[in-house]
Amino acid sequence: MTNIAVLIEQNRGDTPLVRKKTRAVKAGNLIIGGGFPISVQTMWKQRLSADSLGGVLDSLADLNRRGCDIVRFAVPDLESADLLGALARESTVPLVADVHFDYRIALRCLDHPIAKVRINPGNIGAEWKAREILSKARESGISVRIGINSGSLPKNLDGETDRAGAMVKAAESEMELLERLGFHEVVFSLKSSTIETTVVANELFAGKYQYPLHIGITEAGPLIPGIVKSAIGVSTLLKAGIGDTIRISLTAPPLDEVAAGVEILKSLKERTNSVTVISCPRCGRSTFDVQSFLEQVVSDVQKIQKPLTVAVMGCPVNGPGEAKRAELGITGSGKMAIIFRDGTIVRRVPYESAVHAFCEEMEKICENI
Amino acid sequence: MTNIAVLIEQNRGDTPLVRKKTRAVKAGNLIIGGGFPISVQTMWKQRLSADSLGGVLDSLADLNRRGCDIVRFAVPDLESADLLGALARESTVPLVADVHFDYRIALRCLDHPIAKVRINPGNIGAEWKAREILSKARESGISVRIGINSGSLPKNLDGETDRAGAMVKAAESEMELLERLGFHEVVFSLKSSTIETTVVANELFAGKYQYPLHIGITEAGPLIPGIVKSAIGVSTLLKAGIGDTIRISLTAPPLDEVAAGVEILKSLKERTNSVTVISCPRCGRSTFDVQSFLEQVVSDVQKIQKPLTVAVMGCPVNGPGEAKRAELGITGSGKMAIIFRDGTIVRRVPYESAVHAFCEEMEKICENI
Repeated sequence: MTNIAVLIEQNRGDTPLVRKKTRAVKAGNLIIGGGFPISVQTMWKQRLSADSLGGVLDSLADLNRRGCDIVRFAVPDLESADLLGALARESTVPLVADVHFDYRIALRCLDHPIAKVRINPGNIGAEWKAREILSKARESGISVRIGINSGSLPKNLDGETDRAGAMVKAAESEMELLERLGFHEVVFSLKSSTIETTVVANELFAGKYQYPLHIGITEAGPLIPGIVKSAIGVSTLLKAGIGDTIRISLTAPPLDEVAAGVEILKSLKERTNSVTVISCPRCGRSTFDVQSFLEQVVSDVQKIQKPLTVAVMGCPVNGPGEAKRAELGITGSGKMAIIFRDGTIVRRVPYESAVHAFCEEMEKICENI
Repeated sequence: MTNIAVLIEQNRGDTPLVRKKTRAVKAGNLIIGGGFPISVQTMWKQRLSADSLGGVLDSLADLNRRGCDIVRFAVPDLESADLLGALARESTVPLVADVHFDYRIALRCLDHPIAKVRINPGNIGAEWKAREILSKARESGISVRIGINSGSLPKNLDGETDRAGAMVKAAESEMELLERLGFHEVVFSLKSSTIETTVVANELFAGKYQYPLHIGITEAGPLIPGIVKSAIGVSTLLKAGIGDTIRISLTAPPLDEVAAGVEILKSLKERTNSVTVISCPRCGRSTFDVQSFLEQVVSDVQKIQKPLTVAVMGCPVNGPGEAKRAELGITGSGKMAIIFRDGTIVRRVPYESAVHAFCEEMEKICENI
């Protein structure tokens, strides 16, 4: 069996993942690789403007509370570079500059206390431009991500039918330059919009190199298809011990990308300080509107950084059984909601008081952990 | 290597799944198991009433157009059994009755042309009641699902700490009765709200028995966490060759459950007659509001039963590259949307005409396939 097959076998169980060894790369106050916890990334979706910075900072803090560790911003011009710099000076979350085409924008970003700069070798141009970027990054203690995308490979590789192989070749050609310049503070990513190409490209790369990997399916689609492709692709790689930081690319708000990323890590036992929600899908038996109840509490529940299981059940078939194994449970029974703590009924309330009573019990539990 | 390990190895590639052999069980005009296509199920979420039947029939037809093959209804009382019967006489989609506690309701359902009846052995009561149900099912040519849920195991097994083992024991105890009565038209399910227990229980069962399996993570949660857990759990089983029909249990509408189920099968190359959407997650570079564009077209796109790839991109970085490999692509560039067919620009339109132009091109493509 190859090394990766051994890791897949070891990662089938109910324990945290056994991960492939990678180099530790600093990104602000975060470390990517080297066995450090797998971080969750997202990307800001709007262009920055001077008057939006306050709101963006609040959003960054909120994303952070919900499990986001690092946020990337597209930097299409010099003004955006300076605005990102202003944010980076205030943000507690490390920020990454994403630069395409124009090496001067990357250089301007490196004047600011950003954590990392992402460049795409396919479009940054002549070698001397990359060399200038790397030299300045080294001086500033800022790391680099080389982001290979199947949709934007360098011209000489774009015609290859073996997409995964071409992506690895594109990464290797950048690596050659980086290593020649003695620059090692690098995270790589190899993304495609298909699961299989992404998985194969990352397996090939991880089988040969020790650089940490940022993983994800790119352009995965709108919410539901995007989460399905990402969960399958990213979990396949993580179970093979591959991946040091993840980004779920959805045509949906950053909060959804973070929620999906955190949930993937929870499902693989890589995040434990957050709440697992078990909830009834509803059927014609339920007297309790689980969906509307959840919509009212889910945002607060996602902010709790404690290892709790919460069960929100609709009826007496599976409700009490599931609720028994949860720290906090609620289930409908006739016209009343019954609230359980560790399998014991603590309250019975009418449905209209259910949200209030549930949140009160949740607060009590959080105070005692 | 065990049989399952061999299947996992065979199912890593870019081809349809190699599936474990199971018995073929008829459910109305659908066949579950026996190598027939993996079907997608959902469950109706409201209680039936006489005046809702017309609307429910329309919804069933819509679910069917979006890839749903079979729909289950909770039947909490005799009146609901007759309403389900009335639906079953009209519906082109096979319908399943889900009965708990009261065997008389199951018997009443079997008076009607339903496709299958699901009972949960943990709560149907004395053996003679199950015997009556099976005897009538056999007469009517209606198959049965034995649905084992970790949250509602029979009392004698409920205390066991090996949940997966206890679920298999519960299934075996039902199987013993069924086989004693010579009843073999049975689909089994073994569901837990945790991925690992579900996967292990189904692997154990599939390693020993040839009955087809209905798979899913039960009470998986609200939309995002529910899809993540389901995609990881269900794809893990399918890649092991296990699973003949799938249900994604979400605290969300049936349409979302079906969209997630179809997408899981597409990701594993098990469904090809539907549209794959590649779409940009947006960033500060985009001038084209991909999310709002997609929200306007996604519902129509999901109804197309053709093997197409559509790329909806925001900007010129990855846009043209991805769009090139899609039958239909749209990307923003400055103030215009550019529409591609098979990598060739066919139209340039202002953003406000983008939805209309895109749908026109989509129709032309569909007419020619």
